[in-house]
Amino acid sequence: MADTVGSLGMDFPPPPAGIERSAQLMREFATRHGAESRRVVLVTSGGTKVPLESRTVRFLDNFSSGWRGAVSAESFLEAGYAVIFLHRHRSMSPYSRRFTALSWLDALRLVPGEDCCQRVEAEQSLLPGIVPVLERYQQVRQEGTLLFVEFGTLSDYLHLLRAAAEALNPLGSCAMFYLAAAVSDFYIPASEMPEHKIQSSSGPLQITMKMVPKMLAPLVKDWAPEAFVISFKLETDATLLIPRARKALETYRHQVVVANLLDTRRSSVVVVTSNSESSISISESEAEGGVEIEEKIVGDLKTRHTCFIEK
Amino acid sequence: MADTVGSLGMDFPPPPAGIERSAQLMREFATRHGAESRRVVLVTSGGTKVPLESRTVRFLDNFSSGWRGAVSAESFLEAGYAVIFLHRHRSMSPYSRRFTALSWLDALRLVPGEDCCQRVEAEQSLLPGIVPVLERYQQVRQEGTLLFVEFGTLSDYLHLLRAAAEALNPLGSCAMFYLAAAVSDFYIPASEMPEHKIQSSSGPLQITMKMVPKMLAPLVKDWAPEAFVISFKLETDATLLIPRARKALETYRHQVVVANLLDTRRSSVVVVTSNSESSISISESEAEGGVEIEEKIVGDLKTRHTCFIEK
Repeated sequence: MADTVGSLGMDFPPPPAGIERSAQLMREFATRHGAESRRVVLVTSGGTKVPLESRTVRFLDNFSSGWRGAVSAESFLEAGYAVIFLHRHRSMSPYSRRFTALSWLDALRLVPGEDCCQRVEAEQSLLPGIVPVLERYQQVRQEGTLLFVEFGTLSDYLHLLRAAAEALNPLGSCAMFYLAAAVSDFYIPASEMPEHKIQSSSGPLQITMKMVPKMLAPLVKDWAPEAFVISFKLETDATLLIPRARKALETYRHQVVVANLLDTRRSSVVVVTSNSESSISISESEAEGGVEIEEKIVGDLKTRHTCFIEK
Repeated sequence: MADTVGSLGMDFPPPPAGIERSAQLMREFATRHGAESRRVVLVTSGGTKVPLESRTVRFLDNFSSGWRGAVSAESFLEAGYAVIFLHRHRSMSPYSRRFTALSWLDALRLVPGEDCCQRVEAEQSLLPGIVPVLERYQQVRQEGTLLFVEFGTLSDYLHLLRAAAEALNPLGSCAMFYLAAAVSDFYIPASEMPEHKIQSSSGPLQITMKMVPKMLAPLVKDWAPEAFVISFKLETDATLLIPRARKALETYRHQVVVANLLDTRRSSVVVVTSNSESSISISESEAEGGVEIEEKIVGDLKTRHTCFIEK
């Protein structure tokens, strides 16, 4: 694995500690679910960190709470997929996303138990929906259909993406890649990075960053060529959205781009393929009723995935 | 409040929504504890986001989990202070820092209760230390000695820091500022910021950032001139550490710099004043016993604060 990303001609740090362990877990996960004829999806989620110094104090980051990835992972599990959840450290996780760190402490109570021991009990009214969430989470844990894999930096992400693709490749068209992570387009090559913290006394900061080669190209061509691949396109300028989605499909030759605008991403997306464009949205009343757009996106993609497998 | 930061000659976005409410909560908090002769400390914690686009997709960030601020806040509460915890959104919080988002779901069990209802109970062995942590947290909540105030961007942080300083100023020397947040030294003025997402197709990224004027200057001189002020200096190069700490004290004329190196910050710091340098460290056996260096730092600063008040 030592040169997985290096071999792509980039000047990146070595793979993260523990990558062999993660790769092995992903291979075992894919093999087990493949044997049970279960489809497996890799959901990537959260932003990537791009260090500006090799002993990192400062970094460039991408806006992403991990909301879309976390909700989508839940929807894929409901739809019968096994899910590898490749997510940014401390971004949102499926199921736990509904509750904040402090909401747990606020909701817990010490109550007298047997033998003078205290029991710790949750006040359910302070954790709305906790019972069904907990039931579903524990069922998923028991079935072993959800695997958590964590990254921090862009480099870690790229190494792990390749390891995931190699793990899923044996599943052929039954594997799906749902690349919802907000991956940086820019990085500073390891050889050009200052070792120490950039000193603020040296005046204004000038940063020059190179473009990150898109990993979609080797993913689609070499790493998992039979898989069903979905990328995301987030823009702020509506006029650029569909042209850029089309451009990505032409360049990388994968199956689907889910295109969305920053301001409306929670209520509206366009699913773009080489020969179609379909809008998916949720109405205000659906949103009030707790419907999340990711359920609809995943439902749509599952149908497309079925057609893709049958072809 | 509209021009609190603007009036410092910077080109910053307007104050965050809700700043008036936060300012009012801080004023009430300071007044209440001042009336009870309790010292009040502002603990700042976590990194600051610096947007690169006005509809933000990308931002520059500073390395900080918020660990030091969260542990220090607990130590100040133990030492009898009331604490305003001004922290980055989703950084670590006092008390809840010990447990991850998923550890909660993993530890909770559904058990049969009365009337066919299910109770939600925590498996204590999966949440080490939960009983004393919960007891302490609930006591703090009941006493009202901990106020949470949240920021995201550098601009929000600066506006809220000024509001906090104005709230604490009436307490004179009984107010302490413990500025542990990792505040960006650089920013892009609002007028120079592109509106839309920077396009990666335009080639390598060139970023030029201006230096952020240090808010320590007006804090010490104008906003809370009688308060006891501690700043932090994090470096990666050991030879620069003490000279930079001394330089900061000479420039801003505050009372203490806590100087630390990135790699050893959890076990060793130097407390620097205009006429002294004292090392604080924890041994391996102390670390194994659960002692945290923040307890010692806070103990040291409390003593210095007492001398400062008496002078």
